[in-house]
Amino acid sequence: MRQSIARLVATPAWERVIVGIIIANSIILGLETDAGIMAAYGPLLHGLDTIILGIFVVEIVLRIIAFGPRFFRDPWSLFDFAVVVIALIPASGPFQVLRALRILRVLRLVSAMPALRRVVGGLIAALPGMSSIIVLMAMLFYVAAVIATNLFSASFPDWFGSLGASLYTLFQVMTLESWSMGIVRPVMEAYPLAWMFFVPFILLSTYAVLNLFIGVIVSAMQEETEASASADRQALHDDTANVLTEIRALRAEVSALREKLDR
Amino acid sequence: MRQSIARLVATPAWERVIVGIIIANSIILGLETDAGIMAAYGPLLHGLDTIILGIFVVEIVLRIIAFGPRFFRDPWSLFDFAVVVIALIPASGPFQVLRALRILRVLRLVSAMPALRRVVGGLIAALPGMSSIIVLMAMLFYVAAVIATNLFSASFPDWFGSLGASLYTLFQVMTLESWSMGIVRPVMEAYPLAWMFFVPFILLSTYAVLNLFIGVIVSAMQEETEASASADRQALHDDTANVLTEIRALRAEVSALREKLDR
Amino acid sequence: MRQSIARLVATPAWERVIVGIIIANSIILGLETDAGIMAAYGPLLHGLDTIILGIFVVEIVLRIIAFGPRFFRDPWSLFDFAVVVIALIPASGPFQVLRALRILRVLRLVSAMPALRRVVGGLIAALPGMSSIIVLMAMLFYVAAVIATNLFSASFPDWFGSLGASLYTLFQVMTLESWSMGIVRPVMEAYPLAWMFFVPFILLSTYAVLNLFIGVIVSAMQEETEASASADRQALHDDTANVLTEIRALRAEVSALREKLDR
Amino acid sequence: MRQSIARLVATPAWERVIVGIIIANSIILGLETDAGIMAAYGPLLHGLDTIILGIFVVEIVLRIIAFGPRFFRDPWSLFDFAVVVIALIPASGPFQVLRALRILRVLRLVSAMPALRRVVGGLIAALPGMSSIIVLMAMLFYVAAVIATNLFSASFPDWFGSLGASLYTLFQVMTLESWSMGIVRPVMEAYPLAWMFFVPFILLSTYAVLNLFIGVIVSAMQEETEASASADRQALHDDTANVLTEIRALRAEVSALREKLDR
Repeated sequence: MRQSIARLVATPAWERVIVGIIIANSIILGLETDAGIMAAYGPLLHGLDTIILGIFVVEIVLRIIAFGPRFFRDPWSLFDFAVVVIALIPASGPFQVLRALRILRVLRLVSAMPALRRVVGGLIAALPGMSSIIVLMAMLFYVAAVIATNLFSASFPDWFGSLGASLYTLFQVMTLESWSMGIVRPVMEAYPLAWMFFVPFILLSTYAVLNLFIGVIVSAMQEETEASASADRQALHDDTANVLTEIRALRAEVSALREKLDR
Repeated sequence: MRQSIARLVATPAWERVIVGIIIANSIILGLETDAGIMAAYGPLLHGLDTIILGIFVVEIVLRIIAFGPRFFRDPWSLFDFAVVVIALIPASGPFQVLRALRILRVLRLVSAMPALRRVVGGLIAALPGMSSIIVLMAMLFYVAAVIATNLFSASFPDWFGSLGASLYTLFQVMTLESWSMGIVRPVMEAYPLAWMFFVPFILLSTYAVLNLFIGVIVSAMQEETEASASADRQALHDDTANVLTEIRALRAEVSALREKLDR
Repeated sequence: MRQSIARLVATPAWERVIVGIIIANSIILGLETDAGIMAAYGPLLHGLDTIILGIFVVEIVLRIIAFGPRFFRDPWSLFDFAVVVIALIPASGPFQVLRALRILRVLRLVSAMPALRRVVGGLIAALPGMSSIIVLMAMLFYVAAVIATNLFSASFPDWFGSLGASLYTLFQVMTLESWSMGIVRPVMEAYPLAWMFFVPFILLSTYAVLNLFIGVIVSAMQEETEASASADRQALHDDTANVLTEIRALRAEVSALREKLDR
Repeated sequence: MRQSIARLVATPAWERVIVGIIIANSIILGLETDAGIMAAYGPLLHGLDTIILGIFVVEIVLRIIAFGPRFFRDPWSLFDFAVVVIALIPASGPFQVLRALRILRVLRLVSAMPALRRVVGGLIAALPGMSSIIVLMAMLFYVAAVIATNLFSASFPDWFGSLGASLYTLFQVMTLESWSMGIVRPVMEAYPLAWMFFVPFILLSTYAVLNLFIGVIVSAMQEETEASASADRQALHDDTANVLTEIRALRAEVSALREKLDR
């Protein structure tokens, strides 16, 4: 039975039905954000929601039966599993925020469509190459946040009152959002030399971000050119191999000639 | 007659006259935005406008006669056609906004000048390669908008009151415009953990945009290098082909030598 | 005498003296912006300024004598000439703004130092390759400004009251500065559908700017790789040429062998 | 003894201990920013801080003994030395700001971990290639600041009151932060033509920054492709060398044949 389930959940028709249900569910969750629609069709939408959730539970259970422990080794399957589990937790009291996360089911589309899965895989695969710079940026932020908290927490508790507040404010400064009119000019009124902290921070952090970008661009480019360059190299190598074959044949001929003369 | 019309509308002189009329029309439409000029020369400008519109109608009709159904298969021709049709719809009542669209006639310059047509063609041709990332970004925005509407619509109806409002606000956040001082700091006063939604959203959306950019850069670069690399490859292949020809000639010579010895 | 002047103004010592005077002048002009320093040393600084201007006039005259009409064909010389002429115009009445332009003399450093001259030359040389996109952007701005003026001038005369005001506001929107909180949200209160104009404008203009950037990157990259690729190609061509020489020598040998056998 | 110390400070175990102490110290300095934690554990944290500082002093002294004058020729060692010296200066009176700099010890992680050291080395190595553009940008900023101070200092002393204030404001304008709504629109109310100064400044400075970026991208890319291209070139050269060897062997054979015939 296990095998026939495995065969069922791998048929294109089944996959298409699941994709269709995910899209329908996404639209329903979108409609549920509208108060007017909820007043008119609330119970209907909630009913559909529950039915779809039931289908998802059945689908996950079938896949767990079909693939057994392998199911839990595939990160995409784990993602599907987590999304369904989130929807099953009763969303009340402290878990109310989980209601909002039900929409993450839309992301099951990514795991259900190979083309999107490949793009997301590519985006994630680019991250390890950036790890050194990300560590450096984390250190830069930590150092800058400690300094900012020490220097400015007394006068600007909203922005630099704690390490967390400083980290958030410095992230804002790095994105250049209102960094001067909103943050640094007011700070400079209390500490006229504050620019000596913020301007270098902006230069360093944007230079680091730039190098993050460049790393991604260079590695993306290299992958692309690597493929075509290796094809080129192979073609040239084959050309030269042809030449070598010809020469060896020629040499064999000359050798034969010499042997004939020797006799 | 059809052929002679086709020949007429393809002459450089005709094209130059049309380009000149488009530019004149653009200037007139620009002048019409000035209240002072309109008070003094309003009727004159409107008169010129009507005459030019008449010329455009005649030109389109001539081209439809000349090219027949082929006219409606060329997207540039369809664009020219649409621009003239927009100008003919009486701009009153609900269609008043169409008056403002008359200036789109300036864009006929693009369809009338091959150099610009090529650039726009290139810009459009780069889009399909970005489709996967655009789909991902659309999903990211939809998911984030549903979450934001669920969480924040009660307290911030202006920014997150409906799915549309949330989408607009998240677009603003993605462009980093006033994202912190204008949106997230006020939201954090009601929901102190709101940064756990917005900061990841900013990181994800800017990372996706970055990958959009990189995709465009890499494919542009590849096209350029592909052309020069293929010329290089050809030159090298020709070099090696020369060598092979020489060697084969040599081998023929040695063969002839052997035959001579055999005799 | 003309030749000896030409020799004089080309000596490294002369050039170094002129660079020194330009730097000294730049510092003086910087000091003149400080009210306190002006109160104490104003006459001294003005005196130095006048002396340095005199030196510049003499230097330009010497170069005109030395190079004759060639002087006026070199854009860098014309720049030096213009900067000195600006300083000679009496800065009073409507020309008072020219006083502020005296600092442009600092830019003579660029024309006086070959390394900087090369970089500026490179920056300018990259512009023609961008001309098509710049024309497209100019058209996009013109069209958008006419539409915005027609639609919004009545309600928002400060931002969209005239074609010029609209162009400036759209430039601000393109740089993403306060585009939403500052401009579009207020406009949407009067015209709820205004985002249908501004969001596409932002997408189109940033996409065009992105393509400007990519054009510059691709052409810069190509120049760099072109040089190294052509060296590579030459080396490979030489390698193959060596092979051909060898083979031809071999063939000559075989021919000689055959002739010997014939005899 | 000197050699045994040198051997000790180079053991992986020692290095791991030092990295651990740096991380512990970083966490302590982070905790010290929290008023609640300081009230409860202040003396404990200060005590740990002093002990760790003692360890750092001992470690530096050991390294100075071990490496002698070589210690002061390595920039990373000098950095470690400076960080410890800063911590020893009594942080009182005018030096109170130095207390905040104690967190720079976190950066000793960079000097202690070769992977990070390499990345930082790469970031610094990219700077000299940008020196020409940096000089040009410095000149652009100086010229623009002098002009802005001359034109606007009377009406806007906060933004353009002195050369320093103008430089800061122009830096803000270059980052596009509130440049229009915050700075240029207010300035244009007093000087309607102020946009003729600011818009070209924005275009020039962002174009220069773009060229900075491109320089970094192109040189990073080139380094990467240079390595793979030189490997390619070598492989092709080796291929051709094989061919040449074959041909020479063949020629030797033919020569031997001829000599045989001569005899």
